[in-house]
Amino acid sequence: MSDHRVATVPVAVRQPPYYAVVFTSLRTEGDHGYEETAERMGELVKEIPGFLGEDSARVPGGLGITVAYFRDLAGIEAWRAHAEHLAAKEYGREHWYERYSLHIARVEHSHGFERAHD
Amino acid sequence: MSDHRVATVPVAVRQPPYYAVVFTSLRTEGDHGYEETAERMGELVKEIPGFLGEDSARVPGGLGITVAYFRDLAGIEAWRAHAEHLAAKEYGREHWYERYSLHIARVEHSHGFERAHD
Repeated sequence: MSDHRVATVPVAVRQPPYYAVVFTSLRTEGDHGYEETAERMGELVKEIPGFLGEDSARVPGGLGITVAYFRDLAGIEAWRAHAEHLAAKEYGREHWYERYSLHIARVEHSHGFERAHD
Repeated sequence: MSDHRVATVPVAVRQPPYYAVVFTSLRTEGDHGYEETAERMGELVKEIPGFLGEDSARVPGGLGITVAYFRDLAGIEAWRAHAEHLAAKEYGREHWYERYSLHIARVEHSHGFERAHD
């Protein structure tokens, strides 16, 4: 089950080009097995070659955004076609999501900032 | 000030190509004028030609993700160079953000899903 640790460091910025998959969703009410499957997917995706990490945030009762980063389109395609992921997506459309949007985008520029502490 | 309405519909999916600006951040503690400025920036960006909308989510005490969509790089550049936005970004690095990452990406594929209700 979800361990509810709160991430506080974004995925590290890489030298472009690389790819971002932006998934923005509104959930249905109730869990319907979502948390357990989400945790499982979060582990499985790490096995995909070229997966660089993902960041997630959700407003209670509102939109959630997950951005997954991949080195190349081959990794995105491998994840898209992963059997267990395909099954989870089909289940998700039936049970978890009121609506979502998905954008696959080639990162052309990036930079990071970190506050200096004395 | 912020009106705390909760958005429940992601920015509409467009025909690619278009651009996504992904901003992922960890805030410092306290407001320091953030909410008021964020609301002002949310209004100003709507005046940028080619701005298509933005989605935001934040985990309390954790990461926030904002994804702004633009028709082309010219719109992103116009927003980047906007004087009031530049001032807000400088203030933000001094007061609001522990760290952030920014990715500018060209959307090559997108699709949306909406649950059918009888």
